[in-house]
Amino acid sequence: MLEGRHLIEPMDFTNEELDGIFELADSIIEDEKSYMDKCRGKILASLFYEPSTRTRFSFEAAMYRLGGQVIGFSEPSSSSVSKGESIADTIKTVSCYADIAVMRHPKEGAPKVASMYSDIPVINAGDGGHQHPTQTLTDLLTIRRTKGEIGNITIGCCGDLKFGRTVHSLIKALSRYENVKFVLISPSELKIPDYIKREVLEKNGIEYVEAEKLEENMGSLDILYMTRVQKERFFNEEDYIRLKDSYILTPDKMEYAKKDMMVLHPLPRVNEISPEIDSDPRALYFKQAKYGMYVRMALIAKLLGVC
Amino acid sequence: MLEGRHLIEPMDFTNEELDGIFELADSIIEDEKSYMDKCRGKILASLFYEPSTRTRFSFEAAMYRLGGQVIGFSEPSSSSVSKGESIADTIKTVSCYADIAVMRHPKEGAPKVASMYSDIPVINAGDGGHQHPTQTLTDLLTIRRTKGEIGNITIGCCGDLKFGRTVHSLIKALSRYENVKFVLISPSELKIPDYIKREVLEKNGIEYVEAEKLEENMGSLDILYMTRVQKERFFNEEDYIRLKDSYILTPDKMEYAKKDMMVLHPLPRVNEISPEIDSDPRALYFKQAKYGMYVRMALIAKLLGVC
Amino acid sequence: MLEGRHLIEPMDFTNEELDGIFELADSIIEDEKSYMDKCRGKILASLFYEPSTRTRFSFEAAMYRLGGQVIGFSEPSSSSVSKGESIADTIKTVSCYADIAVMRHPKEGAPKVASMYSDIPVINAGDGGHQHPTQTLTDLLTIRRTKGEIGNITIGCCGDLKFGRTVHSLIKALSRYENVKFVLISPSELKIPDYIKREVLEKNGIEYVEAEKLEENMGSLDILYMTRVQKERFFNEEDYIRLKDSYILTPDKMEYAKKDMMVLHPLPRVNEISPEIDSDPRALYFKQAKYGMYVRMALIAKLLGVC
Repeated sequence: MLEGRHLIEPMDFTNEELDGIFELADSIIEDEKSYMDKCRGKILASLFYEPSTRTRFSFEAAMYRLGGQVIGFSEPSSSSVSKGESIADTIKTVSCYADIAVMRHPKEGAPKVASMYSDIPVINAGDGGHQHPTQTLTDLLTIRRTKGEIGNITIGCCGDLKFGRTVHSLIKALSRYENVKFVLISPSELKIPDYIKREVLEKNGIEYVEAEKLEENMGSLDILYMTRVQKERFFNEEDYIRLKDSYILTPDKMEYAKKDMMVLHPLPRVNEISPEIDSDPRALYFKQAKYGMYVRMALIAKLLGVC
Repeated sequence: MLEGRHLIEPMDFTNEELDGIFELADSIIEDEKSYMDKCRGKILASLFYEPSTRTRFSFEAAMYRLGGQVIGFSEPSSSSVSKGESIADTIKTVSCYADIAVMRHPKEGAPKVASMYSDIPVINAGDGGHQHPTQTLTDLLTIRRTKGEIGNITIGCCGDLKFGRTVHSLIKALSRYENVKFVLISPSELKIPDYIKREVLEKNGIEYVEAEKLEENMGSLDILYMTRVQKERFFNEEDYIRLKDSYILTPDKMEYAKKDMMVLHPLPRVNEISPEIDSDPRALYFKQAKYGMYVRMALIAKLLGVC
Repeated sequence: MLEGRHLIEPMDFTNEELDGIFELADSIIEDEKSYMDKCRGKILASLFYEPSTRTRFSFEAAMYRLGGQVIGFSEPSSSSVSKGESIADTIKTVSCYADIAVMRHPKEGAPKVASMYSDIPVINAGDGGHQHPTQTLTDLLTIRRTKGEIGNITIGCCGDLKFGRTVHSLIKALSRYENVKFVLISPSELKIPDYIKREVLEKNGIEYVEAEKLEENMGSLDILYMTRVQKERFFNEEDYIRLKDSYILTPDKMEYAKKDMMVLHPLPRVNEISPEIDSDPRALYFKQAKYGMYVRMALIAKLLGVC
């Protein structure tokens, strides 16, 4: 039972609980209309202590498509933060007005604190560089719907694997499924942290390789998960110039890929995927964004206990 | 009849009109579901010329829970203020789109001016240090629901009684009820203004005492209304250091209080009520926030003439 | 058929298509209630890359009065713009969440670019000094409803005719109707651009005169379309002082006007129309604002194909 629960970290739910969410999302996609009044009379508090249009839109559209309403703010300047109120007091007050809350916060752990004082379910919509569990749900639903299952895949994660919370969460989540292999493609400065290798991959006996070049590894992948490589993250200009093109997905690199390889990206992208790829049927990142809305509909409905 | 009226000052309505609002609020609390379509097709304009998350959330949630919709802004930067438009023109235009408006403004009197040019009911949601009538309605409803009536109480107002508009409005409002006694607890720098003593309390023959220490007066109170004491308001550091702890409500001070004393606070609090008090059943400030939403539902419904 | 179309420039639709919109607007005005569920389950994305309270409120109220919902932002700081995302990617993502989008952008052509990548209808709500087509629709509906038809009028356009996009668009739109005469009243620094005279007025054989003084031309007008004259736009202080009063509409100037002359203004006004005029039955600018909401209701309903 997910009713009344919080979602703070991607691993808060068991695989069975996740299956329940994904099955509900499938059902919503199939017949959206029959869900349009499920949250009638319910209010989502959308608490964005830092701007994130995409994630905010996704949650708010999800609530509206379930027939619910939304109160909220989209940046801290229009909130009471300036008055020095604690997160605990804010969520206790919000609990008076709303039935469920979603929180994006620049400080790690803020949504967790909120959930400890809240009378209503709290969903973490990103806390600093820490967690962004509904992105992970989005990624899993997209894989599940495209491949038919989540296991039995070779997935390449490409870009900034050091700071990218999206990739860290995805690796953790996928480590609970059968027969998942990772190809971790990044410049050496931005390699996956050791603790993920030791505590997630090796501990669970998961096969992985590390690589520096995208094109050389393309052919083996069922899924390519792209993320951005920011110039500022490189130690020196030369390395950046030498490597940057390796981390931009272009049509010529796609020629090495399997015919049914999925290209995913959490968005927004800057230049790490060439817009020419958008028309390639393997480019699934906008579909992924749409699935993000559906998985949030399913999540909200489950936490509110209306489905 | 309240249909089509404005609420600019706490005393704009008679006690009988207030009773009508409180009775409707009671009825909404008892059976919220039967009110969920009362404002269907109606729009509230939520005009916040300065941020106030709590008050804005309360009004917007109130409108949504009545089935209505909301347009608005939460700070002046995203409004047309910068284009030099007058309040009169703004409200006349807003009247074209919305059915009722709520206005928070840093300038005293701005909502009053708006109401003079408006085709739709205008509710003052706070104008500078001046008035905040729906906070007063919230306070009265909380007292009424907890004590069964509004009169026959001894109420302690504690903190900054000089600048605190909330307390001034509450004293004025309570002065219209039977047998209300005040204990006015503040540092000498922040005593209640003379005009309130003369023109409200003494003029109406209302019993009051002034005091400096909270603990010494605790035992006599039916209600303790806490407000914040800001350091900047003290004339010198020594006084602040000497007095500040007197104005922080702690569990040891609560030991002097009656078993059914109500602790109220308009929120947000900073440190003037210790979080340990939150679990004390006498701590009613979060319940008060919830009643604030219900009293706003009743107010909106009355002014729109739908209940 | 307007379903699925975009509205980027005022001339994107034929007169027949505009008639369809105006007839629907008439019908909505007559019986608003029967349209209150037409957009149930639909979402409008309200993308304001620069603040414009009035236009935003008008669109959002329009969507709500059709039973739809709104996601959006009211200024760029709370959007993903800062992350360097392209307009193309933004609209493609928004297409995942919403059914129709309205965009105000400081850069000319941004809504056009968005429409090229969008899966959903895009409405231009103003792009820099360029176009603001729904203002033109508003103006045309107001003329049509007041005069019974759009042709056979003498219209005075007064104020800044050089930079005023509203007037440029209105002239272009009116040039497609029968027997429209223009009186173009402005300081010499702010005369209508040559290309509009040549390519719109003269090319279509439309009668027009240019003038400097409002009062001298008042008597001939069926419609007076006022716009603001900004001090900064004058070349020198003397000219400004000499001319400024000519461009302020006052009761004494109204005495020269026909008894049924319409005064229009796109709003917000600063001081170019004296507030004393507001009570004159010929002052239609607030009614015009209301019609603006109704024409947007009709437009949204047509582009979504629900009416």
